[in-house]
Amino acid sequence: MKHVLSADQFSRSDLDHIMKRSAEMADILALGGSKLCDGKILGALFYEPSTRTRLSFETAMMRLGGKVISETDVTFSSQTKGEVIEDTIRIVGGYADIIAIRTKQKGEAKLAAHYSPVPVLNGGDGSGEHPTQSLLDLYTIFKHHKIGEKPLNVTFVGDLKYGRTVHSLAKILRQYEGVNIQYVAPEEIQMPEEYIKDGDSIHTELHDEILQQADVIYDTRMQKERFEDVETFNRVRNAFIFTPEMVGKMKPDAILMHPLPRVNEIQQAVDKLPQAKYFEQALNGVPVRMALIAEALEI
Amino acid sequence: MKHVLSADQFSRSDLDHIMKRSAEMADILALGGSKLCDGKILGALFYEPSTRTRLSFETAMMRLGGKVISETDVTFSSQTKGEVIEDTIRIVGGYADIIAIRTKQKGEAKLAAHYSPVPVLNGGDGSGEHPTQSLLDLYTIFKHHKIGEKPLNVTFVGDLKYGRTVHSLAKILRQYEGVNIQYVAPEEIQMPEEYIKDGDSIHTELHDEILQQADVIYDTRMQKERFEDVETFNRVRNAFIFTPEMVGKMKPDAILMHPLPRVNEIQQAVDKLPQAKYFEQALNGVPVRMALIAEALEI
Amino acid sequence: MKHVLSADQFSRSDLDHIMKRSAEMADILALGGSKLCDGKILGALFYEPSTRTRLSFETAMMRLGGKVISETDVTFSSQTKGEVIEDTIRIVGGYADIIAIRTKQKGEAKLAAHYSPVPVLNGGDGSGEHPTQSLLDLYTIFKHHKIGEKPLNVTFVGDLKYGRTVHSLAKILRQYEGVNIQYVAPEEIQMPEEYIKDGDSIHTELHDEILQQADVIYDTRMQKERFEDVETFNRVRNAFIFTPEMVGKMKPDAILMHPLPRVNEIQQAVDKLPQAKYFEQALNGVPVRMALIAEALEI
Repeated sequence: MKHVLSADQFSRSDLDHIMKRSAEMADILALGGSKLCDGKILGALFYEPSTRTRLSFETAMMRLGGKVISETDVTFSSQTKGEVIEDTIRIVGGYADIIAIRTKQKGEAKLAAHYSPVPVLNGGDGSGEHPTQSLLDLYTIFKHHKIGEKPLNVTFVGDLKYGRTVHSLAKILRQYEGVNIQYVAPEEIQMPEEYIKDGDSIHTELHDEILQQADVIYDTRMQKERFEDVETFNRVRNAFIFTPEMVGKMKPDAILMHPLPRVNEIQQAVDKLPQAKYFEQALNGVPVRMALIAEALEI
Repeated sequence: MKHVLSADQFSRSDLDHIMKRSAEMADILALGGSKLCDGKILGALFYEPSTRTRLSFETAMMRLGGKVISETDVTFSSQTKGEVIEDTIRIVGGYADIIAIRTKQKGEAKLAAHYSPVPVLNGGDGSGEHPTQSLLDLYTIFKHHKIGEKPLNVTFVGDLKYGRTVHSLAKILRQYEGVNIQYVAPEEIQMPEEYIKDGDSIHTELHDEILQQADVIYDTRMQKERFEDVETFNRVRNAFIFTPEMVGKMKPDAILMHPLPRVNEIQQAVDKLPQAKYFEQALNGVPVRMALIAEALEI
Repeated sequence: MKHVLSADQFSRSDLDHIMKRSAEMADILALGGSKLCDGKILGALFYEPSTRTRLSFETAMMRLGGKVISETDVTFSSQTKGEVIEDTIRIVGGYADIIAIRTKQKGEAKLAAHYSPVPVLNGGDGSGEHPTQSLLDLYTIFKHHKIGEKPLNVTFVGDLKYGRTVHSLAKILRQYEGVNIQYVAPEEIQMPEEYIKDGDSIHTELHDEILQQADVIYDTRMQKERFEDVETFNRVRNAFIFTPEMVGKMKPDAILMHPLPRVNEIQQAVDKLPQAKYFEQALNGVPVRMALIAEALEI
């Protein structure tokens, strides 16, 4: 069965196919949607809140003509009554044709998939994976740069230690030729060694040269609780806030991405610059998830 | 873009058009709905709970053949993660074709509209506006009285100081000829001066004469926290409870309205009297919101 | 109007008809659903959380081609603003074509039905009734045994004192010839006398003979709070945990049912045995609720 559980599961040809199908879905969206999933039901089980991801999955299913049943009440779910996820998934998997699930604990999406009678799309399992995010990130880069056809500098900035989207996207980009990766983060939250490969470069400061050479900058939020004291956090964070001046140093066709929500790590004044693509990135979640739903349902 | 943000935005001819379209929607409802919004999605963002308003918007969209994505989890929304409403609206506005929003703070609906790529319908912004309520109130009066064709006594009763529905409806009624307005409220919660015009009459007690002369009585709930002490509140409230005896003094074709929920300001025994129209009023929310959705989508 | 409020309301011919209609709905489900309820709206009002029951009702309506409006926010509902259920139901009953309701207090579903302009399906009213569960239980037995055509041993196990599903199913089974009922429970939570009839047998322990003779075993969860002390609870519970060894003593065509969620009263290793039918039982909620919706809407 075509579960989507991890960014690791996709071969290069899988990725090429998903990118192609996502572009087709974007065309379908522009024409007002389709009836491809007429009569189908998506079960959205969100045991951790995530408005953006849930609404994006729901929208994707509805734009394909399908319907949605949702469980978003974190506090009062069957889970809190002591029911194991295996039982929940067998039942909801009997109601719905496909399941999107977000869980608190790493590995729970895989566990759910093992017991599910229908395809499971991992919408984020704690500190684990968030593969649909990685695919929409990849799709966003593809829309602006021909990955694999010419050298591409992708620079990750911010919390690279705990950010699962950064880890997954970095792994996916390894499948393409000519992608050079830079990591820019304070030492406390630098990219873990296991993800770093020969040729990658590691920085602790956002030098102008990095900004000028990047084709893609992927920024992420730093969280206060990762630092030993508030002073360190404040000092570090301020050095990493994207201002219009900084973004103005980027190439005209470079893109600035962010998985959102942002708090203040990218100033609102940046939003109107041509490099700012984080809202477009969020919206790309719909065609990419439409593609994944259609693929999983073999439609 | 055709946002619906304030009762003030409508000209007399806008109001006439919306009333006409709402009546057409009532006919469509009676025939079982339509497919006018087939393939369209309403995004319902309720950052303050309001079952009645939300379900009314959702029903309106579904009766037009459309679908709905909802965010009602007040505690766990993106908003509480620190995301500004501008970012949320840009994204949900990219998922959905139209947005209905209820917010805690006055002005947030307008802010949302400024950043939204799609029409925004204000479902109540804190102490600010609630224009769709005012329009369904107007529609309810229209169904029973030809406003503008003969003199009409409209009497507002209850909490006139803090009730945003009262303020908005009073402003809208100014656009029609021959509407005479009476305010009946204890001093503590009397109508603010800014809304009172020449010709309006102000009372602190519900005299029989007022009941007998009214064509429309619009009652609202008094809230304990508006009064200095519980004794004052109880004394005042008891003087304003509608009993069957009181409603029996109204003209046979007069109507008693209330935005609901009521607690005990209208006794349940009143419900079966011919003047009681507050349930009909609530249900009028569906055709009026269908009209507003269709207008906003230019369908 | 065709409300579904209590397991007591159904005559034998009603039950026969619902079983027949449910089987037809199962066939429709296998073919991908229908458009029988196209344009219709189910209002799901869940004032007590129940993911399984709510999603099952929503799925049933969607598989019939209909749509759903839901109120599941227990804390922030109109109810907590002090609105009486009579008012809520009159309004939501004006939005929707049919209502499924779960309430905290016994009797509230009946109260709702009294004021509703549309059919009400009781999805559980506190310690009262849960008739749609009883019907899906009956349907599950029917799928495996020809009730009424040959003698059938139905054994209820677990918390028989407080389990409303047990009480309702026992009452429904009385309508069929040849059903012999056994109750197996510790004294503290044994079946109340009012439900016990001549010919029933009462046990306090799960003897092998009972396991071997049962055609249907209906197990339920024991709750710690029903016992005087934790030691008693633990001792009693351990004697009632279904192991693969115990289930292996059941006839090959006997079925083991449970209304779910289970915690540990049936070991997960039992799930793969042919007698384990509790997941199938949960999924039967969809065709049975499809049948009840269609009947209530007279479609």
